[in-house]
Amino acid sequence: MDEKKFQNRAIELAKRSIGLVSPRPAVGAIVVSKGRIVGEGHTMPSPKEHAEILAIKRAKNNTKDSVLYCTLEPHNFFSKGIPCTKLIIESGIKEVSCPTIDKNPKVNGKGFEELIKAGIKINHKWDKNSISECKKLYESYEHKIIHEKPYISLKTAMTIDGKIATTNNESKWITNEDSRKRVHQIRKYSDAIITGINTVLSDDPMLTARESNKYLNRPRYRVVLDHKGQLNKNYRIFNQKEFGDVLWFTDNNVKVNNLPTHIKHYKCKNSIDLNYVVETLYKLGCNSILVESGSTLAGAFFDNNLINKLYTFIAPKIFGGQNAPNPIGGLGITNINNHIKLKNITIEEISEDFLFTGEIDI
Amino acid sequence: MDEKKFQNRAIELAKRSIGLVSPRPAVGAIVVSKGRIVGEGHTMPSPKEHAEILAIKRAKNNTKDSVLYCTLEPHNFFSKGIPCTKLIIESGIKEVSCPTIDKNPKVNGKGFEELIKAGIKINHKWDKNSISECKKLYESYEHKIIHEKPYISLKTAMTIDGKIATTNNESKWITNEDSRKRVHQIRKYSDAIITGINTVLSDDPMLTARESNKYLNRPRYRVVLDHKGQLNKNYRIFNQKEFGDVLWFTDNNVKVNNLPTHIKHYKCKNSIDLNYVVETLYKLGCNSILVESGSTLAGAFFDNNLINKLYTFIAPKIFGGQNAPNPIGGLGITNINNHIKLKNITIEEISEDFLFTGEIDI
Repeated sequence: MDEKKFQNRAIELAKRSIGLVSPRPAVGAIVVSKGRIVGEGHTMPSPKEHAEILAIKRAKNNTKDSVLYCTLEPHNFFSKGIPCTKLIIESGIKEVSCPTIDKNPKVNGKGFEELIKAGIKINHKWDKNSISECKKLYESYEHKIIHEKPYISLKTAMTIDGKIATTNNESKWITNEDSRKRVHQIRKYSDAIITGINTVLSDDPMLTARESNKYLNRPRYRVVLDHKGQLNKNYRIFNQKEFGDVLWFTDNNVKVNNLPTHIKHYKCKNSIDLNYVVETLYKLGCNSILVESGSTLAGAFFDNNLINKLYTFIAPKIFGGQNAPNPIGGLGITNINNHIKLKNITIEEISEDFLFTGEIDI
Repeated sequence: MDEKKFQNRAIELAKRSIGLVSPRPAVGAIVVSKGRIVGEGHTMPSPKEHAEILAIKRAKNNTKDSVLYCTLEPHNFFSKGIPCTKLIIESGIKEVSCPTIDKNPKVNGKGFEELIKAGIKINHKWDKNSISECKKLYESYEHKIIHEKPYISLKTAMTIDGKIATTNNESKWITNEDSRKRVHQIRKYSDAIITGINTVLSDDPMLTARESNKYLNRPRYRVVLDHKGQLNKNYRIFNQKEFGDVLWFTDNNVKVNNLPTHIKHYKCKNSIDLNYVVETLYKLGCNSILVESGSTLAGAFFDNNLINKLYTFIAPKIFGGQNAPNPIGGLGITNINNHIKLKNITIEEISEDFLFTGEIDI
């Protein structure tokens, strides 16, 4: 019983860092001595401390013979600070309870090996649900390590007849309030949110993750793709610098003076090159990107094979209309055998809506 | 335990008549004497017997002090034969176990009343699942009685991005084999299946209900809406008269000689008038109609407020493409507040596909 409680606490702590510490993985750690939590930590942005270091520091003199619960394998190499493994060994911790290997090639099991060599017991056996939670925590981090690309999700919201707006282009609101809250949970896990200028012009979104109207300090980057350079001071994203940097991608010939300092202007050689956009975010350390856009941009992401995961909210409503827009436009496929497959599908009921989630099967 | 077994058997028998006996409701009945089924029956097409009459006749001398299980209230008026209630009373049956009132205004509780007056016990208390099965059995029958219109369902199959074909118009197959089997179960419950000529020209469907390739003798009517009169001998529906009548609706000016006898030609005054089509099927005694069509015809049915229920199969696939067709075209709505709401929603997992079912909330 306590085991599961400690695992959950470590996961909870890890979640506090998600979306704030990339390219670092978000880790949660607790030190448990005589059945009591004596120290806690979660990853800080570079160059500050890792979760394990903070938990051990806060445990002060209580680390001897204690158990460290952490969501990801402690790292074993010198970078901004000392290796976590070194401090764990020095602290007198007798057991490390952790289900996940860090896929970073510099670690990849070597962290655990070093601890075992020092006589520390390793317990990989976590509760099934906790393991699946940890898997989600490192989905985009692992993807980035393996593929050297960020993990990109697309969120859409449609009626059961596949419409994202009426023929008149009205779209507020297709889904219910609980679904819209759920979107903020997805945003919270994202280092960057990308949208197109048409969404800005029609919806004037803030592109922030919020909970009960409280800004969650995420995402790190709000990204607007705007080939003609139509963004201006009439839109919230242009003015609200308190919500972090806006990366503004335009054509090469767009020239603007006196931009607010939170807007960083990137110019693409010919129209908007999505690969350049993604590469730019990768270099800025983003593991996880969320695209929230209309049909055209979503279609372009698929036409460029850039999407890894799909979140589709489905409302039990019908709009009808041959000309009503659909969630994924672009060129699409012609031959049915070339369709994009989804795997690891889940369906979540959200009041009367449904959230369909699936990973692109490459 | 036995109670539930007898209820299920009556329901099973009722299902044998579904799609074959409209405008009559499909009823199943069994006579149980000393814990043993001694007679069974299900509704025959008019002017043949009702289910209760058949069950009692087959029970021969065993009806005294027996229990009659039937899925719908026995009728109490003279029509093609004697009232079921009369024969039940004469047979010496001591109890009638039945959960459903027949909404036909000539019956509507009066059948039960007559039995009670004759000293027969009525047991309405069926198992919860059995009651819900009975409710489904009489969904379209009750609708027809209350609204004086057939109950019309639309079946569509789409990708998770709301496409019913690729931009190249390829659609075989979007859903998996199990979903396609499920479609035949839906067809089995339909008195008529309506499709548009474009579906005939592109898919050459048989529009029959089949199980393991065996023709289930349903639906009674296959209906093709073909305003220019393009149906010809190159299509299966034109040749396969063994699968029942085809009602062929065209514009007024379409003239054809030497039609096969199973094709009944109906002419609409100006283009295809869906209300005239539905009215015609109503007069032919159809309680339940299934529309299986492309985007345009499905949209026209919605634009005319003619759909009562939606079956949407969703495959975990993406086609993309701005020009790929969507399930419900037509004019659609413009103001989002006028959207069509769905109620009593269910989601069924069919291998990796999903079947979303909902009733139109009028």
